[in-house]
Amino acid sequence: MSEGKPITCIAAVAYEAGKPLTVEEIVVDPPKAHEVRIKVEYTAVCHTDAYTLSGVDPEGAFPSILGHEGAGVVESVGEGVTNVKPGDHVIALYTAECKECKFCKSGKTNLCGSVRATQGKGVMPDGTSRFHNKKGEDLLHFMGCSTFSQYTVVADVSVVAIDPKAPLDKTCLLGCGVTTGYGAAVKTADVQKGDTVAVFGAGTVGLSVVQGAHVRGASKIIVVDINDEKKQWALEFGATDFVNPSKDLKDGETIVEKLVEMTDGGLDFTFDCTGNTDVMRSALEACHKGWGQSIIIGVAAAGKEISTRPFQLVTGRVWKGSAFGGIKGRSEMGGLVSDYMDGKLKVDEFITHRRGFTDINSAFEDLHHGDCLRTVLDLSK
Amino acid sequence: MSEGKPITCIAAVAYEAGKPLTVEEIVVDPPKAHEVRIKVEYTAVCHTDAYTLSGVDPEGAFPSILGHEGAGVVESVGEGVTNVKPGDHVIALYTAECKECKFCKSGKTNLCGSVRATQGKGVMPDGTSRFHNKKGEDLLHFMGCSTFSQYTVVADVSVVAIDPKAPLDKTCLLGCGVTTGYGAAVKTADVQKGDTVAVFGAGTVGLSVVQGAHVRGASKIIVVDINDEKKQWALEFGATDFVNPSKDLKDGETIVEKLVEMTDGGLDFTFDCTGNTDVMRSALEACHKGWGQSIIIGVAAAGKEISTRPFQLVTGRVWKGSAFGGIKGRSEMGGLVSDYMDGKLKVDEFITHRRGFTDINSAFEDLHHGDCLRTVLDLSK
Ligand SMILES: NC(=O)c1ccc[n+]([C@@H]2O[C@H](COP(=O)([O-])OP(=O)(O)OC[C@H]3O[C@@H](n4cnc5c(N)ncnc54)[C@H](O)[C@@H]3O)[C@@H](O)[C@H]2O)c1
Ligand SMILES: NC(=O)c1ccc[n+]([C@@H]2O[C@H](COP(=O)([O-])OP(=O)(O)OC[C@H]3O[C@@H](n4cnc5c(N)ncnc54)[C@H](O)[C@@H]3O)[C@@H](O)[C@H]2O)c1
Ligand SMILES: [Zn+2]
Ligand SMILES: [Zn+2]
Ligand SMILES: [Zn+2]
Ligand SMILES: [Zn+2]
Repeated sequence: MSEGKPITCIAAVAYEAGKPLTVEEIVVDPPKAHEVRIKVEYTAVCHTDAYTLSGVDPEGAFPSILGHEGAGVVESVGEGVTNVKPGDHVIALYTAECKECKFCKSGKTNLCGSVRATQGKGVMPDGTSRFHNKKGEDLLHFMGCSTFSQYTVVADVSVVAIDPKAPLDKTCLLGCGVTTGYGAAVKTADVQKGDTVAVFGAGTVGLSVVQGAHVRGASKIIVVDINDEKKQWALEFGATDFVNPSKDLKDGETIVEKLVEMTDGGLDFTFDCTGNTDVMRSALEACHKGWGQSIIIGVAAAGKEISTRPFQLVTGRVWKGSAFGGIKGRSEMGGLVSDYMDGKLKVDEFITHRRGFTDINSAFEDLHHGDCLRTVLDLSK
Repeated sequence: MSEGKPITCIAAVAYEAGKPLTVEEIVVDPPKAHEVRIKVEYTAVCHTDAYTLSGVDPEGAFPSILGHEGAGVVESVGEGVTNVKPGDHVIALYTAECKECKFCKSGKTNLCGSVRATQGKGVMPDGTSRFHNKKGEDLLHFMGCSTFSQYTVVADVSVVAIDPKAPLDKTCLLGCGVTTGYGAAVKTADVQKGDTVAVFGAGTVGLSVVQGAHVRGASKIIVVDINDEKKQWALEFGATDFVNPSKDLKDGETIVEKLVEMTDGGLDFTFDCTGNTDVMRSALEACHKGWGQSIIIGVAAAGKEISTRPFQLVTGRVWKGSAFGGIKGRSEMGGLVSDYMDGKLKVDEFITHRRGFTDINSAFEDLHHGDCLRTVLDLSK
């Protein structure tokens, strides 16, 4: 039994911005009170990991263990943990849910405040780290998850048990990309039957928005992407139209004009899934006067700002955002998993690449290729 | 009987940007089909009139007859008009309501599309003007109202009959300022009991927001204004706190920090009633993470843009706007008038100055003085 003892295992450590991860043995401390140690089985690589590793994230700190789209099995729990037990199949949650803070109790947001401050600093709620390298140096945690390690420790509010019949090599994607896009459509925007929708950026997040809008019966789902390879996927996930703004516009025509024309006045909902602030502006301005809502999901480069003329809002457009799709991880993940098991939510379709864990730096490379939605890493290899 | 014949009367004509209005005799044509000729009894002067007259409004056109906060009596109606009849007491509506267009039928906005295009061009729906000066030149209409004339012609969708017992020298203010602010609080924001609210700018619009928030039982209503003279009024209309950002901040403290501290994390609702785009940004950023909504009411100077980091929205703040308080003029004005008659809606309190119509240029001067909320002009003098 490993319970109560440090575990030595393989992790991919981010020692320095802009450098590849170092795959090496590390030591993972046992969970303290209200903490959970998880044997991570599968993790995917998301753009936020790449963003932090690149060094452009001003809050990125090193050395650290990245990764936040992972699933595994509880190895042991600290004192006072009641929501999961050893052997439970779980998904790590970068958006915690304590059910007790002002945010959780408000009924208006999924942004729990319980572990926010320490999570942002890369430490556990008590201010310390559970990860150490063989030199004895502390390694920082990341987004409250750190799934790029065969074992990780998370706060009990940052983990949810799921149906053990659900395959972890698929459900790991519910830890970020799929849930983020799907939730943005069905929860943040609450798309209704007949609504018109435009989705900018057809990565895992954007295609998940498409899926959510399609499930809700949107009458038009226009995908906008500068990469033609995305058209095929867009249509598979339920898009009705695909526009490549670098090719499909008439001389002098803007993407806003094109979309407004395609929808007789603009869209009911638009979503930015690119992280590009110019795209965010177009997404807002392509909304229908009077009621169109634009939802920002993409994470912008450091220092970048969004702008528009205030008249756009005074005439009825609404600008909002969505984090983790507005989904409360502990309360709502079970529903997503059972939708997946019932064939109502596509997840497998996002997995374009699979690799062994030690090949993780290639998974970061995959992200730069238009043919990759998600690479799932098998931590046992 | 004047019906069917042109009427010669006094109007204040805006011949040129940046110049005083010319008070002179003009000729007002009879109403065509679906038009209404109104004997204007009282009008107030609003900042939008001054904005257009100043010449900075890129859509301002001359010569024209400004004014959009007015009330009067129907003199005659054109063919097919069924919603008002001669003798009805009415308020002119710069936000029309046709009840038939896509916007009116949507149930989501008060921005009727029926007369928008021609109204923006300063003409009646048939593309022509009903105003001519003594030289025979056409004078443009303004915002579908043109209340700076003893007689005006408006589209039937741009006028609402009200309780004849309501005093027109007061209810004229419901044509813009009071309705705009009050509606923004009770309709656009839909402030609920216990909510915290900050209002930037304590003119007629901002104080009307305060009034709306107070009626709804907001727990904290913070008024932010750079003019200390506004404090007294703010408190009278229901504000709980007043902050003058040019005096009440500690060294290095921003208004956002101050407000976030005063409300333990930020406001449920903030309103910009200044038209200053920097204020709009502060108003957004002072909102509570997770759910705070900022509503832009102020009209910004031409070319000015709002900006923020998209993270502000991704973390749950919502940026929206409000035009005419989200109020549908024909369906909802009756309710406001009866609230006023029942003592539930303050209107008289906004009238700080009264003048004869021919003194209209002084009323524009009044606008620049901190002690003026609204100057009401008596068109009979
Ligand atoms: N808010 C959240 O909670 C949250 C969670 C996860 C990811 N994200 C962010 O969502 C965004 C999308 O993530 P993803 O994994 O789908 O990324 P991705 O890189 O797989 O997909 C982005 C897509 O946008 C397209 N694109 C790029 N520039 C474009 C432009 N100018 N116009 C149109 N299309 C353009 C690309 O071709 C690509 O298909 C990222 O910014 C990511 O950081 C946000
Ligand atoms: N959206 C609409 O439908 C609509 C309708 C009517 C008016 N408006 C606009 O609403 C705004 C307010 O109208 P009003 O009649 O109340 O104007 P007002 O000039 O009487 O009031 C503006 C107030 O803002 C204060 N102010 C100016 N700069 C400030 C700053 N930097 N910080 C804090 N306070 C500041 C002033 O001291 C003043 O008290 C104007 O921009 C007007 O054009 C919009
Ligand atoms: Zn992610
Ligand atoms: Zn919480
Ligand atoms: Zn006005
Ligand atoms: Zn209409």
